Amino acid sequence: MFKTARRVEFGDTDMAGIVHFANFFRYMEVAETDFLMSLGTNVSFVADGTRFGFPRVSAACEYKSPARFGDLLTIAVAVEKVGTKSLSYRFEFTRDGAEIAVGRVTSVFCEKAATGMISREIPPDIRAKLQAAT
Amino acid sequence: MFKTARRVEFGDTDMAGIVHFANFFRYMEVAETDFLMSLGTNVSFVADGTRFGFPRVSAACEYKSPARFGDLLTIAVAVEKVGTKSLSYRFEFTRDGAEIAVGRVTSVFCEKAATGMISREIPPDIRAKLQAAT
Amino acid sequence: MFKTARRVEFGDTDMAGIVHFANFFRYMEVAETDFLMSLGTNVSFVADGTRFGFPRVSAACEYKSPARFGDLLTIAVAVEKVGTKSLSYRFEFTRDGAEIAVGRVTSVFCEKAATGMISREIPPDIRAKLQAAT
Amino acid sequence: MFKTARRVEFGDTDMAGIVHFANFFRYMEVAETDFLMSLGTNVSFVADGTRFGFPRVSAACEYKSPARFGDLLTIAVAVEKVGTKSLSYRFEFTRDGAEIAVGRVTSVFCEKAATGMISREIPPDIRAKLQAAT
Repeated sequence: MFKTARRVEFGDTDMAGIVHFANFFRYMEVAETDFLMSLGTNVSFVADGTRFGFPRVSAACEYKSPARFGDLLTIAVAVEKVGTKSLSYRFEFTRDGAEIAVGRVTSVFCEKAATGMISREIPPDIRAKLQAAT
Repeated sequence: MFKTARRVEFGDTDMAGIVHFANFFRYMEVAETDFLMSLGTNVSFVADGTRFGFPRVSAACEYKSPARFGDLLTIAVAVEKVGTKSLSYRFEFTRDGAEIAVGRVTSVFCEKAATGMISREIPPDIRAKLQAAT
Repeated sequence: MFKTARRVEFGDTDMAGIVHFANFFRYMEVAETDFLMSLGTNVSFVADGTRFGFPRVSAACEYKSPARFGDLLTIAVAVEKVGTKSLSYRFEFTRDGAEIAVGRVTSVFCEKAATGMISREIPPDIRAKLQAAT
Repeated sequence: MFKTARRVEFGDTDMAGIVHFANFFRYMEVAETDFLMSLGTNVSFVADGTRFGFPRVSAACEYKSPARFGDLLTIAVAVEKVGTKSLSYRFEFTRDGAEIAVGRVTSVFCEKAATGMISREIPPDIRAKLQAAT
């Protein structure tokens, strides 16, 4: 399974002394980016003059144990489902093996048009890589 | 139902030209704060020299339609469940009546101790106000 | 002088229990937006199918006293200089009259072109309003 | 000179398609943290049961050229001045040798007391390391 790491920054914390809950979604995005880059693609890229990307249609996180400034978090990225146009991830956050949080994100492959984002089928080459990583 | 409003700030957007998905969780927090303030309490407060608060154990969002810079979002806050120690909210984001997103957050009432956050029963006066608002 | 207000959000704080220093720049942006909206323009807008905006070339802040969760900050916006293409602001942050911080931002009026941002002369109607507000 | 690197995250950008100006201050903080960690200390740490840190009294940034999603920024950290209680940094942001931004931050060494932050003299061992790095 693909894994990446993130050190908690001072600015990620809040007055409770722990990582602010919304920042786990930023961490998921970075893990998603690292994962897609490892497959040779990205969360946003230009092909033949058109910008494509994976905007989210849902995101969720369960918080098990707080993370603090300086913690080195390991983020394991699992592809749970590859649909025709959509893609579902599961992110496991751990620190030295201890469970910190579990997140889920579903993204839809889209083309950025002048009128907005238009969903598209995930291209066969990207799909093949995602399925191989499932 | 309690409602509050939020104008989308320039810095809330990302390069896709829309509100970054993680920022909806920041919006939920502000709506939760406004709601609790309307009941005379808050997401974090000091009573008798001890700090109490409502850290989250789960958070989720479904994105229906993008929000953009300058949009005035209405956020309706519903208390879905008041448990002994926990509290579940539903947040409906709309713009001129059009559905933008639906969020859910579950918080646990906690005391901030030297050793970390310790869950506590929601005090009767706060519980009564929450149930009255359900 | 134009004034706006901002209540400090929980997520604006850091583990030191105060507003994270970088967030004052977010506050300045919101104050700049509110100010420009009061003049009938904005930090980013579309005219005749072209997007214009005011990207920053410099930003600075001096921190006098910390701000905390729930504080209601008053932000006074002064236009210090209106150049041919650029615009300099001074932002005074106070809480109940007590000085919290002083910020400065210089923005350049730009057109967003396919090749990037191109600086342009500030249009006469916007310039006149800015000078009237100086 | 101490150098660190930062890859621009998707969530660091704004609707102008570039890194939001306030995020450069987040980058400076991470570079400051990496630098202090390289000296065996940190922006926030506990010694003998007391928390110490380096809150900022001023911060500034000049923006030379925009940074975009995926850019790998090099951040060179120079200690410009070590005072009795304060510390001034200069941060040079480059991408493949091209200048992106120059930042400056002045921090004051403080003890976190119940009543707030109290400035203290920088301890001799930290001072010696900072001066050696100047």
